[in-house]
Parts: sequence; C-alpha cells; structure tokens
Amino acid sequence: MTETWVNETLYPDWAQRFRVKQELARVKSDFQDILIFESFSHGRVMLLDGVVQITERDEFVYQEMLTHQPLLAHGAAKRVLIIGAGDGGVLRRVLEHRNVEKAVMVEIDGEVIRLAKEFLPAISGDAWNDPRAEVIVGDGIDYVRKAEAGSFDVVIVDSTDPIGVGEVLFTDEFYQNAARLLSANGVIVNQCGVPFMQADELRETSERRGKFFPDIWAYVAAVPTYVGGYMTLGWAAKAKGLRDVPVAEIRARAEKAGILGKTRYWTPEIHVGAFQLPPYISENLEG
Amino acid sequence: MTETWVNETLYPDWAQRFRVKQELARVKSDFQDILIFESFSHGRVMLLDGVVQITERDEFVYQEMLTHQPLLAHGAAKRVLIIGAGDGGVLRRVLEHRNVEKAVMVEIDGEVIRLAKEFLPAISGDAWNDPRAEVIVGDGIDYVRKAEAGSFDVVIVDSTDPIGVGEVLFTDEFYQNAARLLSANGVIVNQCGVPFMQADELRETSERRGKFFPDIWAYVAAVPTYVGGYMTLGWAAKAKGLRDVPVAEIRARAEKAGILGKTRYWTPEIHVGAFQLPPYISENLEG
Repeated sequence: MTETWVNETLYPDWAQRFRVKQELARVKSDFQDILIFESFSHGRVMLLDGVVQITERDEFVYQEMLTHQPLLAHGAAKRVLIIGAGDGGVLRRVLEHRNVEKAVMVEIDGEVIRLAKEFLPAISGDAWNDPRAEVIVGDGIDYVRKAEAGSFDVVIVDSTDPIGVGEVLFTDEFYQNAARLLSANGVIVNQCGVPFMQADELRETSERRGKFFPDIWAYVAAVPTYVGGYMTLGWAAKAKGLRDVPVAEIRARAEKAGILGKTRYWTPEIHVGAFQLPPYISENLEG
Repeated sequence: MTETWVNETLYPDWAQRFRVKQELARVKSDFQDILIFESFSHGRVMLLDGVVQITERDEFVYQEMLTHQPLLAHGAAKRVLIIGAGDGGVLRRVLEHRNVEKAVMVEIDGEVIRLAKEFLPAISGDAWNDPRAEVIVGDGIDYVRKAEAGSFDVVIVDSTDPIGVGEVLFTDEFYQNAARLLSANGVIVNQCGVPFMQADELRETSERRGKFFPDIWAYVAAVPTYVGGYMTLGWAAKAKGLRDVPVAEIRARAEKAGILGKTRYWTPEIHVGAFQLPPYISENLEG
C-alpha cells in the first residue's frame, strides 16, 4: 500500500512531514488554501497555504501560552479582542477565564471557521455558543481601525506568518490602532515565528511595536509542530512591570480565574520563566 | 536538477527532512550507520542509524544545556565523566569551565570520533588536544563498572535513544554504577528524548534512577532539530537541593567558571527556569 505524506512547505530546505491517514478537507477559500487531514501521529492537522497551523495533539501548548500569559500578566482583563484564530482554540481558552466579560473574535476567512467547526470540534469545544463571545467574519485591520479607544484590555493576534493574508497584521498602522484601542494597562501578544529560522520576523515586528508601546519584549513556547526550537510570542504593553509579576501572584490570579491545575503546558512557574530568553533570541530584541 | 532530501526515520509517521547540498560521509561502523552531509539550512548534519544527532547550526542548545546545567548546579565539579558524545561538543563545553581538572570521555564508536574530527571540526574545537582531556574509545558500561568509587563529580551521558547501541546506558546496572562512582554531591544527566513523542523513555529511566539516587528530576531544552517541542535531560543527584540554587549564585559560579556571557542558549535565568516542567512532561515523573 502506498503511503501518503504531507510535507510542510514553510522553509525551502527543511521541513516536517506527516503520514496521512485520511484527507478530510481541501478547500481554496477567497484567502488561502485550506487542508485538513487525519494524521497517524498528531490527530487532525490543519494547514493554510502549506504551513501547519494547528494539530489536535499539540494545540494546547500554543493556545495556553498565547492566552493565559497576557490575561494573567494583566490581572484584570475583562474585554479581550482576538484577531484570527479561526479554529476557535484561543476563544475557548479566553472564555475559561471567569473574569472575562466579553471576547470578540475577528477572523477574515469564514471558511476556516466553518471547516474547524466541522472537522476540529475538539479544539474550540463549545466556545462558539458562549454568550460572552462575539464572532465576526471580517477584516481585523478594519476592526481595529474603527474600535473605540480603550475598549479592550488584551488583544491576542493568532495569525499566519507575515506573508499572504497575515502580512497586514505586522504593520505600523495595525500596532498604532492596537495601542489606541487598548486600555491603560493593555497588552497585545502575537505569534512571532520561530526565531531559529525566522529571526527577521521577531526583530522587525519588535521595532514596529516599539514605536507605539513603552514595553516591548517576547516570550517563548516550545510548540512541537512549529519546528525549530522555541517559537516566540511577541509582547507589547502600555505599562511597564506586567512581565515582572511574582509567581505567587500569578498563581493567585490563575486560581481566581479558574484555570489553575487545568493546563497541560502553562503553569505559574512556566509563565515567569517564559519571559527569560536565550541570547540567540534576545539579541533580536536589543536593537 | 533533482533535489536530494534526507528524511529522519526516528518516528514512523512524522519526520523532519533536510535538503542535502553534499553528502560527506556514509560509513557502516561496527556499531551503527553514520551519515554526515552538508545541508542547505543547518550546516553540517550527522545521523546515526537514520536519527539526527547533531547539526552545526543548533548544536549549541543541546551542548550548553547538557554541560553547564549540571556543572554549575554542582558548583565545584573538578572531575567530569562523559559517556558517548563522540562529536566532541560536550567535551569542549566541559573544558570551558576553568575549575574542571579532568574530563574523561568514553565513546564506544571510534568511527564517530574519526569522522567528527574530519567533517565536524567546528563542534569540538581544539578540545581533543586539551591536556585535561582523556579520550577513550571503549565501552561506557564497562568503564563505569570498573571506575573507582567517588572518582567523578559529574557524569554526562550523551547517547542515542534507548534503542540499538545506546540501550545499555538506560539500565539498572548502569545507574547503580554511576551512583557509586559519583562523589557525595554528584550529579548525572542524560538525554531523555522528546516526551511529546517518547514519554516512555522519560518515565522508565526516571523510575530506574530513582532506585539509586535520592533526587530525580528532568530539565528541558528546546532543541531545534530534536523535533517535538521540549526535549528532556534526565537529572539524578546524590544530594537534594542542587536544583534549588538561586539565580544569583548560579550567575556567580558561571562568572567564576569563565562561561558567563559566552553562551547562546544557557543563561542563569534559563538554568533556573529549565527545571520547571510543563504538566504534560512532569506527569511522567510523578508516577
């Protein structure tokens, strides 16, 4: 019997490949090529334009770190804006926080949401039906342009790399609007690539964010299917000090929020440690 | 022109692949198949029995964490035993520590040493010629069996996974002898696989070590070419508390040893954070 493999096409000279049990969906949307298949090793896997976005088996790493880290560093986040993340995984993690009153998710590609609901229901759980959730199929750039000043406490950008449809989420205009719509202690985080392979992505977006936010940094997560060692999650905050909250306070906040002990990657100790970067990464942030 | 790729064969259903610029050596030694090639993305790469062991571009992550972590946690390591590590990279890092007086390296496969000297000279640097180094081509199991009690302060095991030639380095007998040859505050570390894919390796070796050492744990490193998120480095110490040395003291020790500021992954903060494990990993240790 012939084996079928899917090769990721993110890098020209190095790649991961998955053995395919069954192809589930292959759709050309208005924005990108969407592929969802059942793998032998990682449960179901979704690729956009040939790049792995999420797998059922390791999604918890990325989602927990992208969500719990900014919400608990902030400490009193009630209103959260999510850009991208059409699979619903970030929305689900945001709504796990008891204190969150409103989560607005803006995903440009309705096909990603539709296919995720059909083929990746475990990732979002019942988040779509939570009364605190507002899901908008639309342009995140346009949404942040029009959003009221100070109307959100945390912004989470779960986008593709700054090529194709995600490119506009890495611009000056986007970060300027994000700074405006965030409240006084507001934080924005975004996926910033794997610096071992994509150091430019971290360096350039950090410089951009530096124009509009007083506190710029990144934190790390070891995501199995974003190959290349640590991936970085970009950090920009309107107040300094949010990265320095002691572990005991983070623990207390996590307990109050209802997420302590429910995570498989994030812990209060991991939270504190994730801001400590290896020199090969931090050199991209220190001008 | 046809592209040549090397596919790693570690896992049956998920793999990394490298585009090959030039094959440099393909040797069947008495112990294993050795392949060294020049890649487009990672410099030179060495595989043993189809599994990536080291690349020039990311070797610093693994070597620094495997070496500096135990030596600086111990704080006064003068005599270091290295098992495996035929590429010479661990030997080089051990000898960077000013206070090390003797480093004995026991590698079973002389062909690995010979080929590393010829094709991967940047990894070992001049370590082979350091008067403190003693390089033995021989059986590590036999060496630890005969070694004098208390004759080493740190043992570093840089082996393949517990299949093939490396299997005997994960047995009761090996750990019992390691405990005997270590001095009072002695530490042994070993590569323990990528728990996202190889959780059994971590769980079983931890149980084994627990029979002979009072302090058993693991610490993590995000090594780009050991795909699957964090790899774990197994930790067994003859004294408790070595994992709890505060960051300021680790920094002072690193400065005294002459390695502070010379690393690209390890830092005092990373040192402390690396013992903090995500729950999906620590659950394998708390059996």
